[in-house]
Amino acid sequence: MLFRILFRDPQTLARVGVLTTSRGEVTTPAFLPVGTRGAVKAMAPWEIAGIGYRMILANTYHLYLRPGVGVVRDAGGLHAFMGWRGPILTDSGGFQVFSLSSTCEVEEEGVRFRSVYDGSEHFLSPEDVVRIQEELGSDIAMILDHCVAYPSSREEVEKSVETTLRWAERSLAVHRKSDQALFGIVQGGTYPELRARSAEVTASLAFPGYGIGGLSVGEPRETMLRCLEVQTSILPQDRPRHLLGIGDPEGVLESVALGVDLFDCVLPTRMARTGVALAREGKLNLRHARYARDLRPLEEDCPCPACARFTRAYLRHLYGVNEILAHRMLTWHNLTFMHRLFLDCRRAIRAGRMVELIREWRGWGERSPGR
Amino acid sequence: MLFRILFRDPQTLARVGVLTTSRGEVTTPAFLPVGTRGAVKAMAPWEIAGIGYRMILANTYHLYLRPGVGVVRDAGGLHAFMGWRGPILTDSGGFQVFSLSSTCEVEEEGVRFRSVYDGSEHFLSPEDVVRIQEELGSDIAMILDHCVAYPSSREEVEKSVETTLRWAERSLAVHRKSDQALFGIVQGGTYPELRARSAEVTASLAFPGYGIGGLSVGEPRETMLRCLEVQTSILPQDRPRHLLGIGDPEGVLESVALGVDLFDCVLPTRMARTGVALAREGKLNLRHARYARDLRPLEEDCPCPACARFTRAYLRHLYGVNEILAHRMLTWHNLTFMHRLFLDCRRAIRAGRMVELIREWRGWGERSPGR
Repeated sequence: MLFRILFRDPQTLARVGVLTTSRGEVTTPAFLPVGTRGAVKAMAPWEIAGIGYRMILANTYHLYLRPGVGVVRDAGGLHAFMGWRGPILTDSGGFQVFSLSSTCEVEEEGVRFRSVYDGSEHFLSPEDVVRIQEELGSDIAMILDHCVAYPSSREEVEKSVETTLRWAERSLAVHRKSDQALFGIVQGGTYPELRARSAEVTASLAFPGYGIGGLSVGEPRETMLRCLEVQTSILPQDRPRHLLGIGDPEGVLESVALGVDLFDCVLPTRMARTGVALAREGKLNLRHARYARDLRPLEEDCPCPACARFTRAYLRHLYGVNEILAHRMLTWHNLTFMHRLFLDCRRAIRAGRMVELIREWRGWGERSPGR
Repeated sequence: MLFRILFRDPQTLARVGVLTTSRGEVTTPAFLPVGTRGAVKAMAPWEIAGIGYRMILANTYHLYLRPGVGVVRDAGGLHAFMGWRGPILTDSGGFQVFSLSSTCEVEEEGVRFRSVYDGSEHFLSPEDVVRIQEELGSDIAMILDHCVAYPSSREEVEKSVETTLRWAERSLAVHRKSDQALFGIVQGGTYPELRARSAEVTASLAFPGYGIGGLSVGEPRETMLRCLEVQTSILPQDRPRHLLGIGDPEGVLESVALGVDLFDCVLPTRMARTGVALAREGKLNLRHARYARDLRPLEEDCPCPACARFTRAYLRHLYGVNEILAHRMLTWHNLTFMHRLFLDCRRAIRAGRMVELIREWRGWGERSPGR
């Protein structure tokens, strides 16, 4: 994997880069649609590519449990299994082990947990998680990290940082797959000095890229940005940084300005399934009666099929009677919205106007037209 | 609406025809995908057209209740509302009033029922149902019919037949929309003499086409075919006949052989959502473990995207973790399967080999490979 930086915004730390994998190039900053279980919810892979996405994310925890690594390996790897030809990043599952399991015990050796599907007991070491991702065949793999709840005491967070650092070394030591990049993950909760410690040691291990975990989990926006800034200033400038799980437009743009290159988030796909369309003017909640006879498209200038072919009134009706087409069309629209946000973002960096773009989007999260 | 018969099978009553509407031609025998609530479940309208379908069915009962006729009318009618450019047939809702409502009282004037959505009370006369379909703007409308349960006594069925006949006259008397064909509906339960009476009187009213209702509701296959035969021999030969709600391949082919031209059924779309793929070799129930590592497509020679891009193993995985893409792909495949069945059927009629085709499909319903 190769990462080249092409442009830098003069006023911020934002940069436009190109990530080259054996399965094609990705221009950054980029958003990765989330295909947790080997499919982006409600979408076919050719539709994801048609929007303009080059890389997607899938989840090691879920694929390990269902359908199991053997099934994916026998199908020729994850790309062949799910019919996605572009690069795939697999998240290690550290966060899912912690957040989804009914029981989860972190030991020095690894993590013991019960499956979210059937309650069966499993044990995964950092080495197991590397091997599983090698078998899945993703282009970018992530190390197993130790996640803690927010808020957690300084002692708890410090312990998770040190565990993750030891797991990072063990993961690097066993990783063999030459056409797969293994990313480290930095943690540190909301403690800037632990964030710094995590970034310094992980940076010294010379990973080809870095995931930034444990942010946007309930802490104030300012705290998140402060922690992020500490780490992006320490991590090597010439390596890609992936901010795990952030997807709200304001958070994305402010993180890009701090030097983040890659994002993934369920926000656009999950919002779609609750009847919310993302638009420049704000969030359109189609459950509201005011859309019942609204014959406008979701967004006038959007090229997605939901906007090209359907009205807000029809999409509201579909949502109200629980038609799958509603979920499909809102997902398609919301992923198109995110792709256009990132196009604008890359354009702004090239034009040296990232600060203006952030200003234009300020307050977007509170806007919901017609509320 | 114009209906021309182009070919007749020499050994059966099967015929190939062309139905010409103001929104295009439909070659018969034809299957109409069911878009009950103004959408074919899990499919976009351009995907339905892409399979090869020219006409779909929507349901007056459901659209009257949600989103309401006013919303559809204000959107420019059902075609504009749902983005379907081809012809639409609307079922009258007689069957839904009877089968879905918690209470349903049939009076001479019309039918009083409670909404399946919110329990609100409604009254619809045959005239109301004509007017509603005129406002929806469908190309083919159906009269309100009086449906009864199976089994029902001769007296009950006779009463429903006579009521439906009086409603047929009243419906014809108020129908005005010149670019919409109003079809009569024949009933008669499992009593051949009542089937004959219903067909004779309805035929005398000179509708441009006829729906055949109340069959395949639990009666033996032989009884159904006997009742059907009585009616197709009485109904005018030069008018299209629509057999309401039948879609199993053997039932379809045997009904075509008795002179039926149009079909609709939720079978292919509903089966899809239970994890069953329709194939020439039988029904593939993807919940079975034997498909877990089956790298073949659902059907080798099928042109649908589910078969072109995915394996049985992947579709089984998607179904197992409840991904919307599973429902989409199985629906797409099953509707492609039905379209190909009807292509074969029309080809067989032209070649005078309808009897052979029926023989080839005999026993299909009992075949489930790998059970």
